[in-house]
Amino acid sequence: MPDARQYIEIEGSLALRRGTLARPTVAYETWGKLNGAKDNAVLLFTGLSPSAHAASSNSDPSSGWWEDMVGPEKPIDTTRYFVVCVNSLGSCFGSTGPASTDPITGKPYGLTFPVLCLEDVALAGQKVVAQLGIEHLCAVVGPSMGGMTALAHTLMFPGVADQLVSISSATHALPFSVALRSLQREMIRKDPLWKKGQYDIDAPPAQGMQLARKLGMITYRSAHEWSARFGRERSTDDAHQEDSDAFGITFEVESYLEAHARKFVGAFDANCYLYLSRAMDLFDTADHGGSIASAFQKLALTRVLVVGVQSDFLFPAHQQEELADAFDKRNIPTEYVLLPSIQGHDSFLVDMDRFRPVIADFF
Amino acid sequence: MPDARQYIEIEGSLALRRGTLARPTVAYETWGKLNGAKDNAVLLFTGLSPSAHAASSNSDPSSGWWEDMVGPEKPIDTTRYFVVCVNSLGSCFGSTGPASTDPITGKPYGLTFPVLCLEDVALAGQKVVAQLGIEHLCAVVGPSMGGMTALAHTLMFPGVADQLVSISSATHALPFSVALRSLQREMIRKDPLWKKGQYDIDAPPAQGMQLARKLGMITYRSAHEWSARFGRERSTDDAHQEDSDAFGITFEVESYLEAHARKFVGAFDANCYLYLSRAMDLFDTADHGGSIASAFQKLALTRVLVVGVQSDFLFPAHQQEELADAFDKRNIPTEYVLLPSIQGHDSFLVDMDRFRPVIADFF
Repeated sequence: MPDARQYIEIEGSLALRRGTLARPTVAYETWGKLNGAKDNAVLLFTGLSPSAHAASSNSDPSSGWWEDMVGPEKPIDTTRYFVVCVNSLGSCFGSTGPASTDPITGKPYGLTFPVLCLEDVALAGQKVVAQLGIEHLCAVVGPSMGGMTALAHTLMFPGVADQLVSISSATHALPFSVALRSLQREMIRKDPLWKKGQYDIDAPPAQGMQLARKLGMITYRSAHEWSARFGRERSTDDAHQEDSDAFGITFEVESYLEAHARKFVGAFDANCYLYLSRAMDLFDTADHGGSIASAFQKLALTRVLVVGVQSDFLFPAHQQEELADAFDKRNIPTEYVLLPSIQGHDSFLVDMDRFRPVIADFF
Repeated sequence: MPDARQYIEIEGSLALRRGTLARPTVAYETWGKLNGAKDNAVLLFTGLSPSAHAASSNSDPSSGWWEDMVGPEKPIDTTRYFVVCVNSLGSCFGSTGPASTDPITGKPYGLTFPVLCLEDVALAGQKVVAQLGIEHLCAVVGPSMGGMTALAHTLMFPGVADQLVSISSATHALPFSVALRSLQREMIRKDPLWKKGQYDIDAPPAQGMQLARKLGMITYRSAHEWSARFGRERSTDDAHQEDSDAFGITFEVESYLEAHARKFVGAFDANCYLYLSRAMDLFDTADHGGSIASAFQKLALTRVLVVGVQSDFLFPAHQQEELADAFDKRNIPTEYVLLPSIQGHDSFLVDMDRFRPVIADFF
């Protein structure tokens, strides 16, 4: 299997906000070349579930999660920029997370992994950047959870990044979004196979993961899109009926969710999901100074792009506006774009015709 | 325990849309007096989970689910109107449903209960009305699922009701709403204690019911309300932490959901929930004539009120408008009110200051 991942190993222990990790690894991929002045690097943080494989490359020609956005002549143009995408600390695609082996005990961390914060994810990203000999970032970029992580990075390392691109993200999680994620986590935790996090790697809490993924899919898209896409169409898919009862799949939308949920299980570790999901709930810009305004005092950004989507109800329009306003009030030149995409929170992954020009214009 | 319920027993068998029921019972309550002309009766259908106890009375002085709306000098004024509220067929508060004993087998129906449609619920309501000697209804009224049922009633029995009051309802379920309810049903069905519907009455699938109720609570309210109500407040409630792990309750909003979910279990039967929930998904006005417009041709209503709420995302504003437009096009005098309540779908139960005058004006 082609693999473009590179790794840094952090010596000794890494101090997190709520604990420490012994000798963690951080996986990342890069595209393009760092120039002589070392001033063309872009650091990219991901949403909850993607790996560092944002785009294809010679080492790994498979499509990445942001294939349309990152590459030669693409909006984040890798003939001009040196792009670094990190796999989030706490995830399961090469970086140390709850599914990794604790070098101290020789056993998987499971729930002994410290409470994870997005500040820890940002710190791990900064360790990669530093190890690559980059003192200065042209920009830090992130969609969704990655946007919160990018914001955390600018607050923790003011002066390192000149520019910030925040996509469908926010200064903090709303109680509505917390409620939805809390329920997703509970679905996993209530699966008997979860076993308080000590599940057998070959018998993961698949049922809980599938339920959580379905709720995720529902919250990532929009009612409007699904009306256009599914209407009242009945399912013709018999493949997922085998374990069904009288309340099995009737409508096409149910069939669609089932297929996606099944794909997710096995592709993502349950405990990693729990840790990263909660890290989003815990993130609050106000923790960096008592209020957003005072936290923003420490920022040393020269330019910001805030992009959001009208139909996003997980990171709604008013949160995009709040974020853009806060940069404005801090007198940081800010472009604010609210796109009329109908695909909800996930639009940055699918409505590329709208997203590409906005990102391209900025870069 | 005071009880204001009355019952009709249907002789022989009742033909449903997708099956038959032997000798079903329908529970109902009444308020006010039927006048000599028998033209002051109002039939009220409920949402998914309430009983027929819409309001207090001498026989049962406990508060009803629409206490502020039904009673002497209240918007549906029981000094003027004879109000009949039925417990939905398929529910578990006196009417025959999956938790009832099948008189043929002597065992609980469970999943042998026929697929339930809201048309069946409407039919059962009409049986009550007929048995009370009422040939003509002044109005049929329903919120949420009850609005769909009331609409079904007007389509099935044109000429019986003069007026229709539809509250936060729709001509059909959107795929987004179907997805949410499908997921709620799956949470219950995946609970090992559900046992394909044959659970022990003393060991119901409580975990699945709690998860489903939490998702219900999330979809019944609005993000805006919860931001105002909970913000980033941390939970101080230790009562629900006993079976918790590292991912237990942190935020007040999680504590609120937990408390409500626990109350629901034991108060509602799991199979009844599944049947009624799916009946909402299956309902489609277009089934009564190929399209909404042709279905509406058979209506004999003289006046309609359509009320909805801006922040409702289960029965969103555009569905309210669609419904009102369809009556308009049919040349039925229609009042359409979209309220700016922030409590989402549940507003008709809580934002009484906005709802009372609208209903009072109509009556």
